[in-house]
Amino acid sequence: MIYGIVGLGLMGGSYAKRLTDQDETVIGFARRQATVDYAVNHHMVAKGTLQADKYLKDCDIVVLALYPTQIKPWIEEHQNALKPGCLLMDISGVKSNIIVPCQDVLREDCELISTHPMCGRESQGIEYSDPTIFDGANFIVVPTEKNSQKAIDTAKALGAKLGCTYIAQLTMEQHDRMIAFLSQLTHIIAVSLMNTHETKDLVKYTGDSFRDLTRIATINAEMWTELFLLNKDILLDETNQFIDTISHFRDALANEDADEMKRLFRQSSARHEVFIRK
Amino acid sequence: MIYGIVGLGLMGGSYAKRLTDQDETVIGFARRQATVDYAVNHHMVAKGTLQADKYLKDCDIVVLALYPTQIKPWIEEHQNALKPGCLLMDISGVKSNIIVPCQDVLREDCELISTHPMCGRESQGIEYSDPTIFDGANFIVVPTEKNSQKAIDTAKALGAKLGCTYIAQLTMEQHDRMIAFLSQLTHIIAVSLMNTHETKDLVKYTGDSFRDLTRIATINAEMWTELFLLNKDILLDETNQFIDTISHFRDALANEDADEMKRLFRQSSARHEVFIRK
Repeated sequence: MIYGIVGLGLMGGSYAKRLTDQDETVIGFARRQATVDYAVNHHMVAKGTLQADKYLKDCDIVVLALYPTQIKPWIEEHQNALKPGCLLMDISGVKSNIIVPCQDVLREDCELISTHPMCGRESQGIEYSDPTIFDGANFIVVPTEKNSQKAIDTAKALGAKLGCTYIAQLTMEQHDRMIAFLSQLTHIIAVSLMNTHETKDLVKYTGDSFRDLTRIATINAEMWTELFLLNKDILLDETNQFIDTISHFRDALANEDADEMKRLFRQSSARHEVFIRK
Repeated sequence: MIYGIVGLGLMGGSYAKRLTDQDETVIGFARRQATVDYAVNHHMVAKGTLQADKYLKDCDIVVLALYPTQIKPWIEEHQNALKPGCLLMDISGVKSNIIVPCQDVLREDCELISTHPMCGRESQGIEYSDPTIFDGANFIVVPTEKNSQKAIDTAKALGAKLGCTYIAQLTMEQHDRMIAFLSQLTHIIAVSLMNTHETKDLVKYTGDSFRDLTRIATINAEMWTELFLLNKDILLDETNQFIDTISHFRDALANEDADEMKRLFRQSSARHEVFIRK
């Protein structure tokens, strides 16, 4: 079994290193020679290359660790070079608006199964890749009607091989709703809190609560803009629900409605209980 | 030098234990015999009592570790029992609406200096008190025109003795503005995010970002309601600024204004840089 990793950035590099560390054969595909050299020198790949079409035919599984909007163009450009029966996996953070168009253009004898390893770092680039990024993470497999049970099983097995702790299966709609609330909205909140004020003079007074809420305020602008626009309708709905909820608290404070404030505090405390790691 | 700690909850208990551990003499004042017994049995105080008026005359420094709205009534009820020249310190989380009325009623030969140790826990009660709570924390001294330099210096020295890392001095207005943004608003955001949805079925998909943003969503409803109402005007202003900022992001997303989204991401990332602990 030979793995191809397309795109050797933070995530692609982490995939490559983790699989190579487990004695799998990994071919890395990049756009810059410096990236290829880094991957080879750091024993992340068996071979690295800029020439996708020359080496793709050797790969049984190809992980597309690309920006979401690059995936369909990549398939259109390179699919003729794929090995017959090749299994493609994307790892992008939104699904409905990406998978369906990609599956539509893919040649019949290959298959695209969508996966989402729920891990990452604020930093970009192969230099920050880290095979331990998967430890403790969730790995979501998001099949469509076009996927075979064999591809679903292979994707789940890869998640386990990477070391992800929880392997789950969701529909595209379930995935995109979950990710809008748990991940995308939280980033909008962190970024907006950081953008509310010029804050430099506050650093020395900052306690854990502000640090916790802004830990994800350093963000890859290009990628997250893509991801947000690709999930726009659901994300707008979730963001508006949050704005309604915080506006309601604001109104309770403005009206000095202590009973309602306490009710909201207690509801929050009760709901939070299941999230506290024992 | 004898310290009196009035109110042996989470904070009062932590003060008592920390000072006792440093061989200071501490008398603990509580309302329930069980609390006194706990403090004595755990070597947190040299003596514990329900009878404030009997032992207050021995104390040179009295720390009022009470709920904010209890402070003025306590002073009115017990100040005749204070030792002449006694220095009182409150530790409450908002200042303008607490200190001034308390200083106004305090007898002339005693002094109240306001302090704010910026640390805490979600849990309440002496059982959760912890002398290490001060490690790495900020200790803010908030003097008014009525305070002497000697009292300011004594308060700063106590902050250092407790082990607080950063000792600062702010005016009441500076303090209340800073605390509204860094602490109170962050709690409103965490509580509102938790209240946006019934979230129980999402626990298994929850990554670090949602956990980080809701870590403070378990909250002492009584105390925070008091603190919010006592800082209402400033907190409303800060909350409205945040709602405006997140609504602006929402509008950029709704309009698919990728340039503005990227600008907001980049501004957030740049501002966040100084907050990242190296």
